[in-house]
Amino acid sequence: FRRTRSLNAPSPFQQFGPCGRIMKNSAMVMQIQDPASQRLTWYKPPLAVLVIKKVRDSTVLSPFIQLVEWLIEEKHMVVWVESAVLDDPLLMEDKKFLAVKDKLVTFKDGRDDLTDRIDFIICLGGDGTLLYASLLFQQSVPPVMAFHLGSLGFLTPFQFNNFQDQVTNVLEGHAALTLRSRLRCIIVRRNSKDERRDEGQNGKVAESSTFGTLPSTNILVLNEVVIDRGPSPYLSNIDLFLDGKHITSVQGDGLIVSTPTGSTAYAVAAGASMIHPSVPAIMVTPICPHSLSFRPIVVPAGVELKISISPDSRNTSWVSFDGRNRQELLHGDSLRVTTSIYPVPSICAQDQISDWFDSLAECLHWNVRKRQKCLD
Amino acid sequence: FRRTRSLNAPSPFQQFGPCGRIMKNSAMVMQIQDPASQRLTWYKPPLAVLVIKKVRDSTVLSPFIQLVEWLIEEKHMVVWVESAVLDDPLLMEDKKFLAVKDKLVTFKDGRDDLTDRIDFIICLGGDGTLLYASLLFQQSVPPVMAFHLGSLGFLTPFQFNNFQDQVTNVLEGHAALTLRSRLRCIIVRRNSKDERRDEGQNGKVAESSTFGTLPSTNILVLNEVVIDRGPSPYLSNIDLFLDGKHITSVQGDGLIVSTPTGSTAYAVAAGASMIHPSVPAIMVTPICPHSLSFRPIVVPAGVELKISISPDSRNTSWVSFDGRNRQELLHGDSLRVTTSIYPVPSICAQDQISDWFDSLAECLHWNVRKRQKCLD
Amino acid sequence: FRRTRSLNAPSPFQQFGPCGRIMKNSAMVMQIQDPASQRLTWYKPPLAVLVIKKVRDSTVLSPFIQLVEWLIEEKHMVVWVESAVLDDPLLMEDKKFLAVKDKLVTFKDGRDDLTDRIDFIICLGGDGTLLYASLLFQQSVPPVMAFHLGSLGFLTPFQFNNFQDQVTNVLEGHAALTLRSRLRCIIVRRNSKDERRDEGQNGKVAESSTFGTLPSTNILVLNEVVIDRGPSPYLSNIDLFLDGKHITSVQGDGLIVSTPTGSTAYAVAAGASMIHPSVPAIMVTPICPHSLSFRPIVVPAGVELKISISPDSRNTSWVSFDGRNRQELLHGDSLRVTTSIYPVPSICAQDQISDWFDSLAECLHWNVRKRQKCLD
Amino acid sequence: FRRTRSLNAPSPFQQFGPCGRIMKNSAMVMQIQDPASQRLTWYKPPLAVLVIKKVRDSTVLSPFIQLVEWLIEEKHMVVWVESAVLDDPLLMEDKKFLAVKDKLVTFKDGRDDLTDRIDFIICLGGDGTLLYASLLFQQSVPPVMAFHLGSLGFLTPFQFNNFQDQVTNVLEGHAALTLRSRLRCIIVRRNSKDERRDEGQNGKVAESSTFGTLPSTNILVLNEVVIDRGPSPYLSNIDLFLDGKHITSVQGDGLIVSTPTGSTAYAVAAGASMIHPSVPAIMVTPICPHSLSFRPIVVPAGVELKISISPDSRNTSWVSFDGRNRQELLHGDSLRVTTSIYPVPSICAQDQISDWFDSLAECLHWNVRKRQKCLD
Repeated sequence: FRRTRSLNAPSPFQQFGPCGRIMKNSAMVMQIQDPASQRLTWYKPPLAVLVIKKVRDSTVLSPFIQLVEWLIEEKHMVVWVESAVLDDPLLMEDKKFLAVKDKLVTFKDGRDDLTDRIDFIICLGGDGTLLYASLLFQQSVPPVMAFHLGSLGFLTPFQFNNFQDQVTNVLEGHAALTLRSRLRCIIVRRNSKDERRDEGQNGKVAESSTFGTLPSTNILVLNEVVIDRGPSPYLSNIDLFLDGKHITSVQGDGLIVSTPTGSTAYAVAAGASMIHPSVPAIMVTPICPHSLSFRPIVVPAGVELKISISPDSRNTSWVSFDGRNRQELLHGDSLRVTTSIYPVPSICAQDQISDWFDSLAECLHWNVRKRQKCLD
Repeated sequence: FRRTRSLNAPSPFQQFGPCGRIMKNSAMVMQIQDPASQRLTWYKPPLAVLVIKKVRDSTVLSPFIQLVEWLIEEKHMVVWVESAVLDDPLLMEDKKFLAVKDKLVTFKDGRDDLTDRIDFIICLGGDGTLLYASLLFQQSVPPVMAFHLGSLGFLTPFQFNNFQDQVTNVLEGHAALTLRSRLRCIIVRRNSKDERRDEGQNGKVAESSTFGTLPSTNILVLNEVVIDRGPSPYLSNIDLFLDGKHITSVQGDGLIVSTPTGSTAYAVAAGASMIHPSVPAIMVTPICPHSLSFRPIVVPAGVELKISISPDSRNTSWVSFDGRNRQELLHGDSLRVTTSIYPVPSICAQDQISDWFDSLAECLHWNVRKRQKCLD
Repeated sequence: FRRTRSLNAPSPFQQFGPCGRIMKNSAMVMQIQDPASQRLTWYKPPLAVLVIKKVRDSTVLSPFIQLVEWLIEEKHMVVWVESAVLDDPLLMEDKKFLAVKDKLVTFKDGRDDLTDRIDFIICLGGDGTLLYASLLFQQSVPPVMAFHLGSLGFLTPFQFNNFQDQVTNVLEGHAALTLRSRLRCIIVRRNSKDERRDEGQNGKVAESSTFGTLPSTNILVLNEVVIDRGPSPYLSNIDLFLDGKHITSVQGDGLIVSTPTGSTAYAVAAGASMIHPSVPAIMVTPICPHSLSFRPIVVPAGVELKISISPDSRNTSWVSFDGRNRQELLHGDSLRVTTSIYPVPSICAQDQISDWFDSLAECLHWNVRKRQKCLD
Repeated sequence: FRRTRSLNAPSPFQQFGPCGRIMKNSAMVMQIQDPASQRLTWYKPPLAVLVIKKVRDSTVLSPFIQLVEWLIEEKHMVVWVESAVLDDPLLMEDKKFLAVKDKLVTFKDGRDDLTDRIDFIICLGGDGTLLYASLLFQQSVPPVMAFHLGSLGFLTPFQFNNFQDQVTNVLEGHAALTLRSRLRCIIVRRNSKDERRDEGQNGKVAESSTFGTLPSTNILVLNEVVIDRGPSPYLSNIDLFLDGKHITSVQGDGLIVSTPTGSTAYAVAAGASMIHPSVPAIMVTPICPHSLSFRPIVVPAGVELKISISPDSRNTSWVSFDGRNRQELLHGDSLRVTTSIYPVPSICAQDQISDWFDSLAECLHWNVRKRQKCLD
């Protein structure tokens, strides 16, 4: 048996001694593309490109203008921008920008549906731009190429200087991909008359378009969903269920349910270990728990978590999704969380491993130290 | 799209917007059995059963005798035991045992090869019995059913009282399995003349039978491989490489490379988060690192780690494998670690999720606390 | 040199080799009573006793009535209660209580000044009763004897069953004391016209009665003062100064400045080590800091901390004192914190050491584990 | 009441309400010099200066020669060095050094007693030089001025460049002092016939010169005493007593008992909070404990700790003192630890607060982070 480079482990041997083996059940076998070989390809040449820029940061304006002009003039692409971008008076004073302004296609966030209209996304700025891209595409997400301005971010691996070569390279299909899993979150309200319809046959909530009518309760997050005590001075009691089984009760400031991508965001501040984005897992991290022994846990990506207020809790809780959409979780409501089938395909600057470790060093100063100096 | 209960996440959607998709490369697609559906089946009825009992613990003797007698007299199975077991004088004084003693098949650890001779393993005692079973079977491992005596262990989920019903149940094929991944570890010595032969085409070390001649350097661990400073008062400098790339240098008491199963053993004592055994991952945890920022990390199961002494380190290091086989790692040597294709198929008492959380509560008192009492 | 049992270290030798010594400056020598010998004595027999009971907990009513009746009838003491206590309809239905009700002296929290009127305090219920006692006495605090009902609390060491013997014992002067230091906190508002008056000659803020006119900004806390981001989704940037020197900036959910008593309250949930209440120190603990290396620190009790919003921070912060009195800290405001000269004299059930370790085990399950069981 | 700048808290008010106060017992009142006012003064001009240089580091040679020459030629001091220093061939090739070599006074470590012969100590190199100075003076320690070469250490605050001005300044008595407390450690052997003599009247072991005959069992440490499992693969069970009371049992890799100075050495690597050296406290930190809830604790400086092997432990343990003097602790032996009256008077480069926080930033990168960059 000869292994190939693979980020997944090798397929485990499924015969155990002379007699034992795994029961065959073809419906339960998944075909998984090896993460190490996940490379982008284009079915047809991408034409429509969405450019997302960091808001309220004037240093992004010049790169933004350069990029948009080049995409239009040199690459002959159709460039989409959020209509609010054009409200920036500094941008409107820029002559180069005015020359291309009329060729831009604009959309209004929350009103226009981008599904199937965008072939490619370019982000300029901080990690927030990628969270915003994730928010715009609640189902299939076009490939995202993210530039940092200033210093490397976890989600923004590309440097802007020779952006032309790098974008061209990606458009020609030379790019490794990290499929960043997202969590699908649904708040099931106690009094929802549609509650029964929301549940699948096996008690899980289906990921279907019928939720289009209740957009606020079906949300995909790239980093994490946070349940906290909100303005209450008292601590919440939150019950945590996993695949229907009561696992534990949380007493403390709150709970973070995060993707591996999110493990290096809020969860790491709350004490979690850091998980590479290709590990298929969900991380559960308490925020300032009262129990000394409440260490974070990592569970398989396919479980369904249910979170609800303990019946005997004096308080309600608050839920927020990637830092947005904050809302109260009342007694009797529940939050269901599982892994979505729609990951964010995030284009690597180098490869999955190098990009991640470079970010750890740059963003979190992971294990950066003065060697031996203070120890003699 | 309707999900089924699955521990793997649902297969991620591989089309990204109208044009992007993952490059097809059928060699890189893995078929993964959903952990949640991993159930044991028997190709033919198991006949040879290896019974492993905890050593130096007289409380195990009575259950051991009951079990062996029942397997032989009632189930007509061939029972194997390690020959040293029979050296126990207390056992030799037991009349019930003497009646079945001659029907036992014995083997000598380290001399007799058990491969393909054992259909089924029953462990009696602590988690150490499972580590020993793992040690005996360095390739395919027969299904293991492990009883705790006293209180629940991470690796020993079954209670002994009505053992007859439980074993019968498993022999009839009604059992959920947790495939506990193991790490394959190879020490490549600086002066090994076979070094070139050890490397595959792509620089990785193959998992092949040619290592049969170097048993000390090709070791599968179920919990962890530990690199530490040994008796040296000075701290080691250890270089850590991942898929050939230098990731970081470790300065401290040592480093733990563990499976998810091992995350709740030594790694958790060193501050790691706890990972469910079905998550395909490898955990890297520093032991008392000098850097405040050296948080544990979790990487995909398929990477290859290489660990070596930093050229400028004053000291060598010591390596041990599941607590055994301790040996020195010299300058120029390297330890290679990756996930083995041979997991330990560990039979669940209930199911993968319930067994794990019950162990967390019982063995680690995870988040056990006095509710609200001290907080008013 | 022969040491005696002492919780303070022995007085350090102040001659260093043949020539060196500490410069004599008698103004700078403090006389410190050895904590291990801190025993309560009564200058004159205590007459006025304040009884504080846990609110909204009907299980406290019966012990409360027993205690009050006994204090009045048997001990002939004058019993004070907060007037709101009498609003409880359950209490008013109790015949035994009605018999003593008219002998009670009542006061209104926030309106009546208790200074110099109360000789002795008895608390019934949870730790919150002691926090409330601390709040009532912002200068000298009468000795406090605190009973837990149910299970041991950090601040409530006494069991209620034979309360008569125990109270008698204390009234006769047989009791060890823990002097629990408090933090004196003052918010200096940017626009306060009195700002200059608030500062002493050396730049520190004096602990004087002149602050009586600004009660909201001069607060003593027994556990901690917390600075957090409040309802803001963005993280605060907080500047931390120590004796006038800028020490660090905090980026995260917030900061806890706690007494040793408070180290086992919120700070421990945020990851701090636990400090015995007799150690003269102040603990500074970040809440979910963004920096992996922001470990909690412990500084000498006599320093003055100043906390303010970083000039470049997008957000303000919120401050709360022992969980109360929550208010916004604006740009330009500062919070000054130092140790007060008015500790809470908390009566020990056994002694300083035993009481503390019993609480650690009981309230935090400190190092409670299943011995050896899961480790074999 | 007007506070002065003080590192000790203000002397706590010792009257509690109208009647309560602390029982007077003048024997129990300690006079404590305020740490903030601890300044060095010279009773008579220092003449004999001991110069300690880092071993096996050739970059220290040139500063060492400059310093020694200047002390002899300009300051007319008598310079002492350890005789082994002169064995360095590189030193013997240096002409400037040869010119002063004969004026040096040498001593042999372990043979010559330096007590009362040295007025002043200058260290050159890493923190190890100060640990060595501490080792040489097991009772009163002359004032120590420590230079780092390269970068700042916790114990070496002075920069070497304008050393002449700085040393002159200190010799003239302008210097703040940090009194770094040390731990006095005694191993009481099970079979020691002198055991009774070792104990004081109250069960504590006296710090007296009668131990001169057993030098190996009476050791002062500046950083920490460590108890670990040594070469044993099994975990130790260690019993921890505090002032005679059994506090807890430790199961794990070991236990660190450290001074506040040592809190930033090994203890911080094992997860402890960091304690300013002027806080009178002892820190107890487990190394990789099996219990999730075994958080480090901080106890008052004056307690006496006793550590022994649990009677039911399979293994012995090993003890080492500031990384030296490693020896086995057998069943029935005990290690007693308390604060010594002989601190190390360590001269500050700036002051107690600034020096410490500068070291935290420089040596541990405490809360050094990229501001806001990766978080947008």
